[in-house]
Amino acid sequence: MIGFCLVGGGFIGPLHAANIAAHPSARLVRVVDLNRQAAETLANRFGATASSDLDAALADPAVDVVMICTPPRTHAALIERAARAGKAVFCEKPVDLDVRRVDACAQTLAATRTPFFVAFNRRFDPTHPALFEAIRAGEIGRPEMLLLSSRDPEISPPDYVAAMPFGIFYDTMIHDFDMVRWLLQDEIVEVFARTAVMLGENDNPHRDPDTAMVQLKMKSGALAHVNSSFRAVYGYDQRIEAFGDKGMLISRNQQPTSLERHSAEGIRQDSLLRFFIERYAESYRRELDAFVRAIEAREPPPISVADASSRHGSIWLSVASPARRLVVMSRNTKHATRMMPL
Amino acid sequence: MIGFCLVGGGFIGPLHAANIAAHPSARLVRVVDLNRQAAETLANRFGATASSDLDAALADPAVDVVMICTPPRTHAALIERAARAGKAVFCEKPVDLDVRRVDACAQTLAATRTPFFVAFNRRFDPTHPALFEAIRAGEIGRPEMLLLSSRDPEISPPDYVAAMPFGIFYDTMIHDFDMVRWLLQDEIVEVFARTAVMLGENDNPHRDPDTAMVQLKMKSGALAHVNSSFRAVYGYDQRIEAFGDKGMLISRNQQPTSLERHSAEGIRQDSLLRFFIERYAESYRRELDAFVRAIEAREPPPISVADASSRHGSIWLSVASPARRLVVMSRNTKHATRMMPL
Amino acid sequence: MIGFCLVGGGFIGPLHAANIAAHPSARLVRVVDLNRQAAETLANRFGATASSDLDAALADPAVDVVMICTPPRTHAALIERAARAGKAVFCEKPVDLDVRRVDACAQTLAATRTPFFVAFNRRFDPTHPALFEAIRAGEIGRPEMLLLSSRDPEISPPDYVAAMPFGIFYDTMIHDFDMVRWLLQDEIVEVFARTAVMLGENDNPHRDPDTAMVQLKMKSGALAHVNSSFRAVYGYDQRIEAFGDKGMLISRNQQPTSLERHSAEGIRQDSLLRFFIERYAESYRRELDAFVRAIEAREPPPISVADASSRHGSIWLSVASPARRLVVMSRNTKHATRMMPL
Amino acid sequence: MIGFCLVGGGFIGPLHAANIAAHPSARLVRVVDLNRQAAETLANRFGATASSDLDAALADPAVDVVMICTPPRTHAALIERAARAGKAVFCEKPVDLDVRRVDACAQTLAATRTPFFVAFNRRFDPTHPALFEAIRAGEIGRPEMLLLSSRDPEISPPDYVAAMPFGIFYDTMIHDFDMVRWLLQDEIVEVFARTAVMLGENDNPHRDPDTAMVQLKMKSGALAHVNSSFRAVYGYDQRIEAFGDKGMLISRNQQPTSLERHSAEGIRQDSLLRFFIERYAESYRRELDAFVRAIEAREPPPISVADASSRHGSIWLSVASPARRLVVMSRNTKHATRMMPL
Repeated sequence: MIGFCLVGGGFIGPLHAANIAAHPSARLVRVVDLNRQAAETLANRFGATASSDLDAALADPAVDVVMICTPPRTHAALIERAARAGKAVFCEKPVDLDVRRVDACAQTLAATRTPFFVAFNRRFDPTHPALFEAIRAGEIGRPEMLLLSSRDPEISPPDYVAAMPFGIFYDTMIHDFDMVRWLLQDEIVEVFARTAVMLGENDNPHRDPDTAMVQLKMKSGALAHVNSSFRAVYGYDQRIEAFGDKGMLISRNQQPTSLERHSAEGIRQDSLLRFFIERYAESYRRELDAFVRAIEAREPPPISVADASSRHGSIWLSVASPARRLVVMSRNTKHATRMMPL
Repeated sequence: MIGFCLVGGGFIGPLHAANIAAHPSARLVRVVDLNRQAAETLANRFGATASSDLDAALADPAVDVVMICTPPRTHAALIERAARAGKAVFCEKPVDLDVRRVDACAQTLAATRTPFFVAFNRRFDPTHPALFEAIRAGEIGRPEMLLLSSRDPEISPPDYVAAMPFGIFYDTMIHDFDMVRWLLQDEIVEVFARTAVMLGENDNPHRDPDTAMVQLKMKSGALAHVNSSFRAVYGYDQRIEAFGDKGMLISRNQQPTSLERHSAEGIRQDSLLRFFIERYAESYRRELDAFVRAIEAREPPPISVADASSRHGSIWLSVASPARRLVVMSRNTKHATRMMPL
Repeated sequence: MIGFCLVGGGFIGPLHAANIAAHPSARLVRVVDLNRQAAETLANRFGATASSDLDAALADPAVDVVMICTPPRTHAALIERAARAGKAVFCEKPVDLDVRRVDACAQTLAATRTPFFVAFNRRFDPTHPALFEAIRAGEIGRPEMLLLSSRDPEISPPDYVAAMPFGIFYDTMIHDFDMVRWLLQDEIVEVFARTAVMLGENDNPHRDPDTAMVQLKMKSGALAHVNSSFRAVYGYDQRIEAFGDKGMLISRNQQPTSLERHSAEGIRQDSLLRFFIERYAESYRRELDAFVRAIEAREPPPISVADASSRHGSIWLSVASPARRLVVMSRNTKHATRMMPL
Repeated sequence: MIGFCLVGGGFIGPLHAANIAAHPSARLVRVVDLNRQAAETLANRFGATASSDLDAALADPAVDVVMICTPPRTHAALIERAARAGKAVFCEKPVDLDVRRVDACAQTLAATRTPFFVAFNRRFDPTHPALFEAIRAGEIGRPEMLLLSSRDPEISPPDYVAAMPFGIFYDTMIHDFDMVRWLLQDEIVEVFARTAVMLGENDNPHRDPDTAMVQLKMKSGALAHVNSSFRAVYGYDQRIEAFGDKGMLISRNQQPTSLERHSAEGIRQDSLLRFFIERYAESYRRELDAFVRAIEAREPPPISVADASSRHGSIWLSVASPARRLVVMSRNTKHATRMMPL
């Protein structure tokens, strides 16, 4: 049995806690949250010990893994503390928004030989990996174009947006850029991005980009396109299309039921699942299982810190790198300046 | 060029006339209709000669083919007149509702060596024949079950219903029974049918069956099901499903456009094409072409009078009972007796 | 917390045990199996107590519910023992193959005021109930026709078939007949069934029916069709179609992924889920939840013994009733005799 | 009856000739082709007069319309000759590859008050206009993103490519750029294009771009994406997706049949129609009908010369305009220089 200490009891924390409880080889030992009440509520539900401080948890020999589900800016420091305490680390993305900080983390992880996993959950969805395998098996020959639509039904609350501007890149498309690199097993060498603010003042008071299109060129010469929006009223829209010289693969959307309604007005099916936690429920179960099995087998977990590092072309962390022709244009000059490295 | 004399200018007549005009090897020479005005309107549009009498047309050496589009009860006599005049015959279904009359026609056609074609247009649709070919090619192995849904958006007008009671069998399912025999290349040996009157008095004043389910057993042992309704509000519903020991084939419905509309209420596509003439437009063009090519090649047209005869198990001609609760039709008298609840 | 005693550790037992363990208000207290080793393996996995005898379990005050997952012929006696011991009962279908035995059970359940649930799991699938609700909401107006395709990829092993002949009705279509009654909220008044033996001697040595079509008439006048096969090579085929005067509803099949593969040979998607436990995984979770919530609320569980009784037209138990015109024909005279009440 | 003179008997010419013959208000009067034999073959088939010179045709009072189907570089001069002879003009795209030449044509057409139509046939497809109407009707609210996939199964023959380099823009995407402007009723203000040469030397000896992605910004702020390839092995891939604040519309692909094949290997449908003339057969009939009705009603035809002119942002003709931030990058320096106006 692998003992987990969950750090951060909000939002995604309870989902991971339930998956740990349901896993035959894992158990939830501790829950740590600055809000002690939150920690206790979650811990009680699964028979774990609660605390508002990490130190006791790191000293507990029953804890094998620290699972980090706190806000992004705290990730890097928590990773380093857990690594130095000899614990394996399961960390929500991103490692950090500053690539130099990521690199520093990577050095600590290497020095301490810490098993580390960054949770790009989409790699564990039932359909996206089937697409990956089909590419690997040569079904579409050489990949030439990749298209991703990645649209949320809603923008995050204003305080969340304020805490992480340009979240459409850092929070949403970070998954798509990971998909591009992983599906094509290739690195991004050129980026052209266009953002737009389409939502009204009420929904998007900070006027942070809520709509974006990005065109990428890969090292192999393949071209990629990603589009994103924070108001897909018809649900959480998650599609991937890979085109090559022998065919095309499409990972289509999913619906809550397979009901079809025929009337004089047309044929109607359900709109899409609305919530990423529903849409990717299976991927969260599978990523935990893949991590647990790697830990049990004393093998490296399947997504490494390198996948979150600029050395591998991860453009969302590469804004400071003048070696890349990153072009992000925006009507919002402040952000544009910050994001245009040229 | 094959010269056609069209007999019967109403309803389906103008469709056939336009297809003749558009065909590179056919031309419309004459139009005959008891209503001389109707004959002239149609003839003028395509540069043909109009008359209200068939004799002049049968004497015209420019007429190679008599195409019969009149009401069903007139078909047999017209076939015989045309055959005796040495013309080839293209006849809308049915040949006659009385199987003995069909047999008499068949004898005349044989004696006069008349090229004859009964227009079961669905055999020339783009999709149904692809299903036929796939069965022939062994894609589903031995056919074990066949299911047909055959639903019209509306019942025929009351006077039409009065002129042909049990039209749900004689007018609609006649096509499905032909599909069953043709697709399976097999004969029907047992029939269990249930009809219902579901429409209100206004729409169905004669209380003629407007809904029916039929279960068939074939000589090979395969089972078939046909269902029909005269109020498919979502359009003209035409589906065929063939199941065998190696798989399943489905001829699905078709829609006027391929537009998909996504909203918070769901994903909506067009309802089905509503009118059989739209749905089977291509089949009418293809059946004419198949007929013309057979005539040019001096080969037998692809659907013979035998396909409309009881000697081949055509159950839609075997109903001797004028009673409303028609439940079982079969050549097998033993079963029929046992199974008829009247 | 509701304490469960699981009786019968084979096949479906472990699935129910895992669902009980995962449910926030349920726990597995005891496992009973004639095979003590099987009972212990399952009990150990979930921290329960094992035994090969039911008496100790019935005496255990921690047991609130007896969940019966044993072979069908043992169900009725187990139900009665549990009821007399004051336990609630969750029972796999069928209650019994003899309607008189079902009626006797029903009397015991009534006399002991036992909360009872017969597990027709399909009523808890995500899509079928959406179809049910749409009918209830009037989306298709008055239901006029219902069509069900219910096909398994494989026949059961020979010893299982020997133990329950005509399993295509008793084991498979029993679900469809329940769906017909439930979806239409109507009773069956007439049945016409045709069976066939299509599989070879190797796969079906007992020559038990492996293919069947059934046509039903309902009290309301609606017509229904069910077809079934034990060799759907393309997977577990589960479709329902409801047609009415205002439209049509279809509960379509489901696939393991939403991947679409485009090549010169066509557009290919996954074949269907092959195993009923995968296809209906969600329905098993939901039926347990519905049962637990009913027990907690001291309300009657949502499917009663009446749903398994001839008094409500459940045809699979009604073969002894001369009031029904049940016609089941088979080449196997022995079975035909048994099943033809007329 | 509107009399047509068809100029250019190759390729698309016979298609238009057949549509003219089938149209109730149009007739083919003359066929002009430098290759007199080609002109005669086509003219004979439809009872028209053939010639290798345009002058006689322009002098013929039976000719109301000159329909131009010759190679692109000849279009502008033919338009001007026809206009000066007082004939209406139906011209295949493009008017010319040089925007100044288009402007000169436009002046002549205005001065002579010539009814003129440039044949962007996709505007007359059954589905794309349904998408147009749905946007107009507000179904998706404000359009925010538009995505077009426009892929051919094959590259044009080498001599055709040599005669028109960058055909992926001038010959293929010209339709998509027209779709973008028409569907959004908006003008393009920024272009970012990336081309690639993916085909081998045998198929693409001139190393002309055979793959491209283009990202556009519209005057309204909406973003658009177009991708194109000359080797979609699965058929002629033509999809349009419009996204707005109230929903999404998709014009999906079409298939030759609606057959679905289920086997243990999966569910297979036809690959796409392979040839643009099949895919857009209906659009060619409809564009002719729209043109004929405009001429009969003495109204301007529905697509004007302005739709082919840089004054309206038609980027394929705008390479000489420094007012636009057109960015086209290519490994082929010569073309890149020609196409980068900045």
